[in-house]
Amino acid sequence: MSKIAVLGFGTVGSGTVEVFCKNKSNYCKKTGQSLDIKYILDVRDFPESPYADKFVKDFDTIVNDPEVTVVAELIGGNTFAYDCVKRALQAGKSVVTSNKELVATKGAELLQIAAEKNVNFFFEASVGGGIPIIRPLQQCLMSDEITSIAGILNGTTNYILTKMLKESAEFADVLAKAQELGYAERDPEADVSGGDACRKICILASLIFGEHIYPEDVYTEGVTSITKEDAEYAANWGGVIKLIASAQKCGKCLEIVVCPCFVSCESQLSGVDDVFNAILVRGEATGEVVFYGRGAGKYPTASAVVADILNAVKNESKNICWKEKGAESCVVDYKKQEHRFYLRLADTDKAKVSELFGDVEFLNRANMPEGEIALITPELCREELDKKCGDLKVLGKIQLFDIGG
Amino acid sequence: MSKIAVLGFGTVGSGTVEVFCKNKSNYCKKTGQSLDIKYILDVRDFPESPYADKFVKDFDTIVNDPEVTVVAELIGGNTFAYDCVKRALQAGKSVVTSNKELVATKGAELLQIAAEKNVNFFFEASVGGGIPIIRPLQQCLMSDEITSIAGILNGTTNYILTKMLKESAEFADVLAKAQELGYAERDPEADVSGGDACRKICILASLIFGEHIYPEDVYTEGVTSITKEDAEYAANWGGVIKLIASAQKCGKCLEIVVCPCFVSCESQLSGVDDVFNAILVRGEATGEVVFYGRGAGKYPTASAVVADILNAVKNESKNICWKEKGAESCVVDYKKQEHRFYLRLADTDKAKVSELFGDVEFLNRANMPEGEIALITPELCREELDKKCGDLKVLGKIQLFDIGG
Repeated sequence: MSKIAVLGFGTVGSGTVEVFCKNKSNYCKKTGQSLDIKYILDVRDFPESPYADKFVKDFDTIVNDPEVTVVAELIGGNTFAYDCVKRALQAGKSVVTSNKELVATKGAELLQIAAEKNVNFFFEASVGGGIPIIRPLQQCLMSDEITSIAGILNGTTNYILTKMLKESAEFADVLAKAQELGYAERDPEADVSGGDACRKICILASLIFGEHIYPEDVYTEGVTSITKEDAEYAANWGGVIKLIASAQKCGKCLEIVVCPCFVSCESQLSGVDDVFNAILVRGEATGEVVFYGRGAGKYPTASAVVADILNAVKNESKNICWKEKGAESCVVDYKKQEHRFYLRLADTDKAKVSELFGDVEFLNRANMPEGEIALITPELCREELDKKCGDLKVLGKIQLFDIGG
Repeated sequence: MSKIAVLGFGTVGSGTVEVFCKNKSNYCKKTGQSLDIKYILDVRDFPESPYADKFVKDFDTIVNDPEVTVVAELIGGNTFAYDCVKRALQAGKSVVTSNKELVATKGAELLQIAAEKNVNFFFEASVGGGIPIIRPLQQCLMSDEITSIAGILNGTTNYILTKMLKESAEFADVLAKAQELGYAERDPEADVSGGDACRKICILASLIFGEHIYPEDVYTEGVTSITKEDAEYAANWGGVIKLIASAQKCGKCLEIVVCPCFVSCESQLSGVDDVFNAILVRGEATGEVVFYGRGAGKYPTASAVVADILNAVKNESKNICWKEKGAESCVVDYKKQEHRFYLRLADTDKAKVSELFGDVEFLNRANMPEGEIALITPELCREELDKKCGDLKVLGKIQLFDIGG
């Protein structure tokens, strides 16, 4: 008999309870155990809910109940949620969470406690919503050396960029519409700044590189400065603009960056539109593998949370979660890494630009104003790029995506 | 200490030995156990091989050695390979295999023996080569009700169809070139007839529907009759032609079919080109998830085999593999299922066709000969379609792919 506690009855929390209760009898068959949700923790009252008798307001009730073996943390943030998760693990309960902020900032410590207590800390739902990515990375690819991972990890910005390109619209207008439709939060800061994607790539990078990578060590650039003109030039070049979060091994070091990129139409990531997410994993033996699906949403995320709950039940009192190897890699200075870049410049001419950058590829769009030049540079690092751009009037600057074939 | 035996030193067998030996020290760390390949079974001699001392010719040596805990069957076929796998399982050794024919035809029996002996029978490499699909299906999606699965599961035919479309070439010419390049076998029958894809969809369907589905129960149509004219009409319609293997729940029953399909450019499967494979899984809560990568090849397949070996080592004496629930579903008659179809007809006219089929969508291509008509029918079943086509001169007939959004 396993009793489960769900912390937080918001979108993902209520979805988790709903998915679990709908399929409960199946789960009991699959795990060979009797399972049920015993508690739901929320500060609010839900007198009309069919689960009204399960609500509690005090976490102590949960943490002190020896019947509870699995806690699903779906509160968010890293203050109260962190406290609950830590206490649950210390009390010998397994924890599953969809909270990317918590995993990205406190994952190393929480995994350590889980190992000491011989319980599990799972977080499949923290990256890619319903896309199975963390477990496949750990298990199926454990035979291979993974050299890079790159993804479209934020559905809101991908929706905005898709609309900008397809409807030739401006960022602010599309964002307003996305907020109206509920695809973007009223405070879209974490999405549009790249912060959300940054937390997710930190989680994936930590798994692959065996050392915890913290968000503050990652260069993160959002999408707020992307214009519809940039999108038109991307189309002329033969690609689209996507917010890419990537981590790539360079010897013992790691290049990890979140920034908008020109993505060629040849890349599998270029066709990932609207709120969908995709993660491209490159392994030495495996080659390229791409995982694609809904990166957010009530039910996709809830189904990943429930899968983790079932996995925790099946592995009660047996720590099977991933262990960090300890510091073997280091994050390299992103400014020193060479890439090609798209530049959009005003008040200049092709001769001047060619002299400065060498062999460039010029781009076109309809109704280009006099003195506007758009181009793709040869490979150079950001430091050098910024130096060369010193005297130029730069209207747009976007890296080219260069992972994968 | 776990000793492993590899059966067969062909492409996948030698790749498996190579990948394993290269990363052995890592694997020992990851599994916390000392691991090694003790035997390689092959009828041939490999005196120059760095592993020459491991070769044996008699399976008895392996099956009678209590040190061997995991056997990797990479021989192929379902005669000698079947005998070895059965004996290994009965002797209490876990078995991993890339042999789709064996799993599709004998999987139910072998899983049963593995369960009785409390060992494992894993076959991640039998579908999708290096793409993690079987374990994600079992584990990550175990929380969800999977309603359909559809994929491009054969790299050879996908390469041929891609070339036909992109280079406007005929089937026979592209096949000859593919054989020259080593992308197609000298005897391409299993690939071009759809037989290979059929075995793979049977394996996936069995997992999802909880009952073993046998290849002989599946309607299978190959790609040999596809012409470059069909590909041109597909482009005019807004799609491409792909060999699709699909399985879909209809209540308690199952529709399972392998056939070429018109796939809309809106579908994630349309962009899967050359030798790549992709599998689209649709779950009630999860929505659509797509897994993409190299579906064959020495190293991608070997890395999946090695992942299974490591998983077998980690779960020694604990049967964690999937169990069939027993007959709950049945394969429905594919002729009674409604779809839309593309038809290419000679010696007819639009009025006659419209009268016969109702509201059709006509297609065009460059240099259409007099009397040729190409169209998309409304929804109807194959039985009805064949009846209506009775008096027509049919040059091409291809189903429209209609799974997913």
